[in-house]
Amino acid sequence: MKPTIPKGTRDYSPQEVHRQNFIFDTIKKVFEKYGYQPIETPVMENLDTLLGKYGDEGDKLLFKVLNNGDFLSKADTDALDRRDSNGLVNSISKRGLRYDLTVPFARYVVMHQHEIQFPFKRYQIQPVWRADRPQKGRYQEFYQCDADAIGSESLMYEAEYVLMIDEVFTRLGLEVEIKINNRKILAGIAETVGIPDKMVAMTVAVDKLDKVGWDGVANELIASEVTQDQIDSLKKMYGSRQLEELKHLIGTSAIGVEGVNEITEVLVYLSNLSLTQQLTFDPTLARGLSYYTGCIFEVKSKEVQIGSMLGGGRYANLTEVFGLPGVSGVGISFGVARIFDVMQELNRFPEDIDQPIKVLLVALDETCHKWSFNLLHELHTNEIPAHLYPEPAKLKKQMKYADSSDTPYVIMIGSEEMSQERYLLKHMADGDQWQLSLAEIIEKLKPN
Amino acid sequence: MKPTIPKGTRDYSPQEVHRQNFIFDTIKKVFEKYGYQPIETPVMENLDTLLGKYGDEGDKLLFKVLNNGDFLSKADTDALDRRDSNGLVNSISKRGLRYDLTVPFARYVVMHQHEIQFPFKRYQIQPVWRADRPQKGRYQEFYQCDADAIGSESLMYEAEYVLMIDEVFTRLGLEVEIKINNRKILAGIAETVGIPDKMVAMTVAVDKLDKVGWDGVANELIASEVTQDQIDSLKKMYGSRQLEELKHLIGTSAIGVEGVNEITEVLVYLSNLSLTQQLTFDPTLARGLSYYTGCIFEVKSKEVQIGSMLGGGRYANLTEVFGLPGVSGVGISFGVARIFDVMQELNRFPEDIDQPIKVLLVALDETCHKWSFNLLHELHTNEIPAHLYPEPAKLKKQMKYADSSDTPYVIMIGSEEMSQERYLLKHMADGDQWQLSLAEIIEKLKPN
Repeated sequence: MKPTIPKGTRDYSPQEVHRQNFIFDTIKKVFEKYGYQPIETPVMENLDTLLGKYGDEGDKLLFKVLNNGDFLSKADTDALDRRDSNGLVNSISKRGLRYDLTVPFARYVVMHQHEIQFPFKRYQIQPVWRADRPQKGRYQEFYQCDADAIGSESLMYEAEYVLMIDEVFTRLGLEVEIKINNRKILAGIAETVGIPDKMVAMTVAVDKLDKVGWDGVANELIASEVTQDQIDSLKKMYGSRQLEELKHLIGTSAIGVEGVNEITEVLVYLSNLSLTQQLTFDPTLARGLSYYTGCIFEVKSKEVQIGSMLGGGRYANLTEVFGLPGVSGVGISFGVARIFDVMQELNRFPEDIDQPIKVLLVALDETCHKWSFNLLHELHTNEIPAHLYPEPAKLKKQMKYADSSDTPYVIMIGSEEMSQERYLLKHMADGDQWQLSLAEIIEKLKPN
Repeated sequence: MKPTIPKGTRDYSPQEVHRQNFIFDTIKKVFEKYGYQPIETPVMENLDTLLGKYGDEGDKLLFKVLNNGDFLSKADTDALDRRDSNGLVNSISKRGLRYDLTVPFARYVVMHQHEIQFPFKRYQIQPVWRADRPQKGRYQEFYQCDADAIGSESLMYEAEYVLMIDEVFTRLGLEVEIKINNRKILAGIAETVGIPDKMVAMTVAVDKLDKVGWDGVANELIASEVTQDQIDSLKKMYGSRQLEELKHLIGTSAIGVEGVNEITEVLVYLSNLSLTQQLTFDPTLARGLSYYTGCIFEVKSKEVQIGSMLGGGRYANLTEVFGLPGVSGVGISFGVARIFDVMQELNRFPEDIDQPIKVLLVALDETCHKWSFNLLHELHTNEIPAHLYPEPAKLKKQMKYADSSDTPYVIMIGSEEMSQERYLLKHMADGDQWQLSLAEIIEKLKPN
């Protein structure tokens, strides 16, 4: 049999793990510097916790885990007789794989509310599962990388997230645009234009402005029974992207003004600080309308055509569904797979992360091999990542192994080298070589 | 509703994540120094890959994932009509959660054999799932932490594992006994005693020698129809735990002598090196008889009564079941949960790993708060982990937050401090405080 893995899943090779860890470690370092603490939640959650949180479509995309043992003994017999898969699920499956990190986080906060200090700042880097149709570059199992600050309404956190985003992408060596908007501004615009009941349709249409232009947006809105007058008014509103002008235009909408004021306060926090990346107020930005209620964020690459590399925003009621109302929070989620693809495409991964190993020891006979094992131990004692070819095989074979495993240096140990205690150190890439004592080799290869 | 998590799963608090990561990082560092490279495999594997690899009992303990969509449309109707859960599973579930890291590793090696350089040294730290009955301290979802070297028969790797184990436990600050044995010695003993067909019963019984003594072992063996003469002979064999004596006693068993010679060669590799931990040849050691064929390892705490903290050994045929025969390998698996419990009990976790955050900024009014945000940014620019209370709340409230979140230092910023640009830095534990400029604070708190 030829083994395979499920569609939509993937193996990570050593190089891919090293590179992904480089991204994770960069993000983690910034998270921790800003006071975010790591938590982990189980891969399996009760289906009760997950169902109904992601809409009907989301419920269908949840992976459900079959109950163990004689699961049919408690199955819904009506559903069984009707061959009703949907109706049967609840009675044969009580657990599912998590779909995101946000709902498990809300569940965590409610369950541990008495151990937690609020505001609680946590980060979480774990895989999630969605039974989407697998596509090139899109998987059913993928990592999410979230930070949230929960238990405070302070807009300081929004400002802090801008700084964190700025630092992460700068450290990764990527050039991005950080977009910010506020859900209240979207509500204010809809109110001012006279379509408060069509806000979702409006934001979905306007979100495409950059791609389809005003003609395209207008067509879509007319289909949603927005009048030409309202569209003209909307167009005027989006004519300027200046905060002050917009505030004037939506001045009669209390919620709209509140949104503008919130963005303004975020910018006040940032006013004396210089960002490396570009920060843009973008009133067309809509994002996950489901639970965001205040500021929203998005990050786009300025170098590569690709979807957003980060999303986030403020939510007023994340934990309410689990019985803890009135806890405001704000969070961001890095799109690690996209960041990986962009860095890969632009060749931005540092070279030294792929290969932690420094040197291969090559012994030429059995006696030298035992001797080399001691040399290897000396290198390890000096924190030099090194390995010894497992047997005194032909020189050519051992050199080929060094080459194909990308080991930068080789030390050759023959009987003469052994008796003189001076060894041949060779740099594989440029062929330079030296006769050195072990102490000299250690000096040369030691990490700084 | 009060949310819960599935039985047998757990949340990890920030402290638990930090502590577990301390163990992982310690192990990883040693793995990488010895040339082991990380891989990751998907949580879901095809059930084809998993079934039949862990015995009947293991098959029952696999978590199976329900097929998506209208899974009943392809269900085995006979099994449905008979309400036969076991018979139905295959037709409604094609994926399962991995049960260990060994089978996925074998699957990985076979699938990627043409990209891999042999010997291939990989490590893997990921969770696994088993539907065991949950008990205190035993979970259905738990981490495994494995290293394997595959594609070489060299006993150098066995010696290398002894050094790696020695270094990991020493770095963790634990005192352990590293036990080594060889499956071939067990076969040789059984052969010599005249019970080659009862080797499994023999090893299972002898494995309990330390607990139940020879009377207990004898009772168990008699139940397996081993004669008193054979038991006497076995007792004599185990009278000495010296390799040379044992070699003499089992001298007529070719496989037994081979086992002794293998252990001897491992010890030759180690002969000039001094270990920190105790290494013991223990001919009673049996371990997972299922696939081990050569040397086997186990680690026991010398400080706490608890099961083994590491297991491992050599296997001749791990990848054969996936169509790649004749690839010998050797590997170890750290019992991270047990190591965690032992370190917790003995209070061996370093103090500074729980709290990466260094200082809380406490602002006394709105203007100071905005100003403090700039100070915070300066601290971050100097790589000092710091946070600012999100609003100028009452001093008492902010100090309480510093205290309950275990933040070591507080900086207080009032209007006077702001105008003089000198701030009050307070050490929370001993109450010491200083009036300092920002530069002086940075100097004091900067990481070394």
